[in-house]
Amino acid sequence: MGSHGRPPAGATLRDLGEFGLIEAVTARFSHGRDVLVGPGDDAAVLAAPDGRVVVTTDLLLEGRHFRRDWSSAVDVGHKAAAQNLADVASMGARPTGLFLGFAAPGDLAVDWALAMADGMAEECAQAGASVSGGDVSSADSIMLGVTALGDLQGRPPVLRSGARPGDAVVLAGRLGWAQAGLALLTAGSAAGDSRWVDDPRWKELIAAHRRPRPPYALGPVLAAAGAHAMCDVSDGLVADLGHIAVASGVSIDLASEAFLIDEAMRSAGAALDVDPLRWVLGGGEDHPLVACLPPGVTPPAGCIVIGSVLSGAGSAGAGVTVDGERPVGSDGWDHYGQSATDAS
Amino acid sequence: MGSHGRPPAGATLRDLGEFGLIEAVTARFSHGRDVLVGPGDDAAVLAAPDGRVVVTTDLLLEGRHFRRDWSSAVDVGHKAAAQNLADVASMGARPTGLFLGFAAPGDLAVDWALAMADGMAEECAQAGASVSGGDVSSADSIMLGVTALGDLQGRPPVLRSGARPGDAVVLAGRLGWAQAGLALLTAGSAAGDSRWVDDPRWKELIAAHRRPRPPYALGPVLAAAGAHAMCDVSDGLVADLGHIAVASGVSIDLASEAFLIDEAMRSAGAALDVDPLRWVLGGGEDHPLVACLPPGVTPPAGCIVIGSVLSGAGSAGAGVTVDGERPVGSDGWDHYGQSATDAS
Repeated sequence: MGSHGRPPAGATLRDLGEFGLIEAVTARFSHGRDVLVGPGDDAAVLAAPDGRVVVTTDLLLEGRHFRRDWSSAVDVGHKAAAQNLADVASMGARPTGLFLGFAAPGDLAVDWALAMADGMAEECAQAGASVSGGDVSSADSIMLGVTALGDLQGRPPVLRSGARPGDAVVLAGRLGWAQAGLALLTAGSAAGDSRWVDDPRWKELIAAHRRPRPPYALGPVLAAAGAHAMCDVSDGLVADLGHIAVASGVSIDLASEAFLIDEAMRSAGAALDVDPLRWVLGGGEDHPLVACLPPGVTPPAGCIVIGSVLSGAGSAGAGVTVDGERPVGSDGWDHYGQSATDAS
Repeated sequence: MGSHGRPPAGATLRDLGEFGLIEAVTARFSHGRDVLVGPGDDAAVLAAPDGRVVVTTDLLLEGRHFRRDWSSAVDVGHKAAAQNLADVASMGARPTGLFLGFAAPGDLAVDWALAMADGMAEECAQAGASVSGGDVSSADSIMLGVTALGDLQGRPPVLRSGARPGDAVVLAGRLGWAQAGLALLTAGSAAGDSRWVDDPRWKELIAAHRRPRPPYALGPVLAAAGAHAMCDVSDGLVADLGHIAVASGVSIDLASEAFLIDEAMRSAGAALDVDPLRWVLGGGEDHPLVACLPPGVTPPAGCIVIGSVLSGAGSAGAGVTVDGERPVGSDGWDHYGQSATDAS
């Protein structure tokens, strides 16, 4: 609306006001071809060329999903976008738009909000999507409500329920890195000791916690290759494949030798006295894609075969084995704390 | 996933766990024809028959947007859905789907969450939409991130920027009722006196604060009638028409005699020493629709003419007059408190 210019240095959200904040934030967002009506009206209008639209939503809360002393504002924006865009890609869809509900205290620095918006816009650009609308409100702590949309490009959505015995289980993207980074940050915080965080050997693990790198483009590629089932790993590999196993009425066996655990994970595991395979099997937040591909299909470039789909339904969570045995300590994450083994 | 039945009486979210809560909540939602893939996968798939989709999102926070002692769980569900569905209707679209991000303390009663879900489902049904997906998390207080989608049915979206001199400004739905109800609840709370809330004369005003009744069906009807501009009233009539005036480069004059202020509003205004016209001009939360109709178009049934569009752009917020004069005390609501005159 043109009445506010660039916000002054050191300004807070209260200084800028609701409409000034909306204007300053939306000025950071450029809009791709899918955005037909962008921010500034009662609602946005996105293209849905396929006649269907994929939709997913998540809340991210300060202190639960991120900490401002562990992640920069840019990181938080990247991560909030990534976890939703990965859900869209895991349906086999091309991400198109992202919507943000943002609530924060009035004394938050405007610079934090703008840097977060920049991170979100950058992550969207990596996935081919645009931040297309939103809402701001005040709150005692920062919270983000993020909704992502995507286009199926004429293909059926790839559900959790389509896995069939004989399928190969393939992985695209990093696994366990974010959980290792979180473990290092947690240990450093508990010990009041920055060496866990500053050690150059573990820089990439910490960075992985702060900014996941989901392989967005491989979602549509895996769908086009005929994937029977797919999801992103957000609760942990065993937990998420457990959802596929239950929904599909199958069992899944993983081959531990498929997981190439690199030196950073091994040394961090040794330092923290944790078997890094536990991070690989139980850690979420890297948001890689796992898919079940029919026999005879060559996995697309960037995918590694990690197991196979077997006949026979297991009960919830018991349908996934590693080298034929039930893995220990990989239950994943329950937001009300019933069965979490890797609580942050 | 079938492992949980009906939750036991008195159960909390922590008792039920994340997946139990998701299962119990999604069991309350029935899905209309627009829901192609409902809750339970990484994302939902909605029909977008028009090849475009209207999207809007909002956050609702306990203590800021609702109070559990002032509104029941069912009311909160209705209101959270209504304010987003009204945004969709105000673009001229038919609401199709609603997505919910829900965060709450682990000690919240499961019954509260389920009743909220029921309210949300009922409100969606009134608008012809379905709750189609979501996410749950834990938090210190209750927060709802709500996203609503809609279908334009082949028509152009009705924006804020299309008003033209000579248009009639028409209103569909109640105005000022919710603000009067909030004023009564606030006065009762400050005085520790339930007579403000229990007085049968004001029952409908209190109810209007708890459950708005946006005229969803009139959004597409007004669009089909050729509305040049439209929005729902969420910040206050003068503030929201101010957005239309600025976006369209016009002025708007309202006729005070058009506002039929009924006995409940008059008696509540007298009791609280407030001119009820202030609630009409400045109160949001009823979510009626206001539209600018071209000359010669008969307003659809249920719409009342309240003013006219004039040439000449005003500066922000100054483009709206009542009987030719700038109204006082009707600036509407700024979430960071810069210019709010009716803060709740």
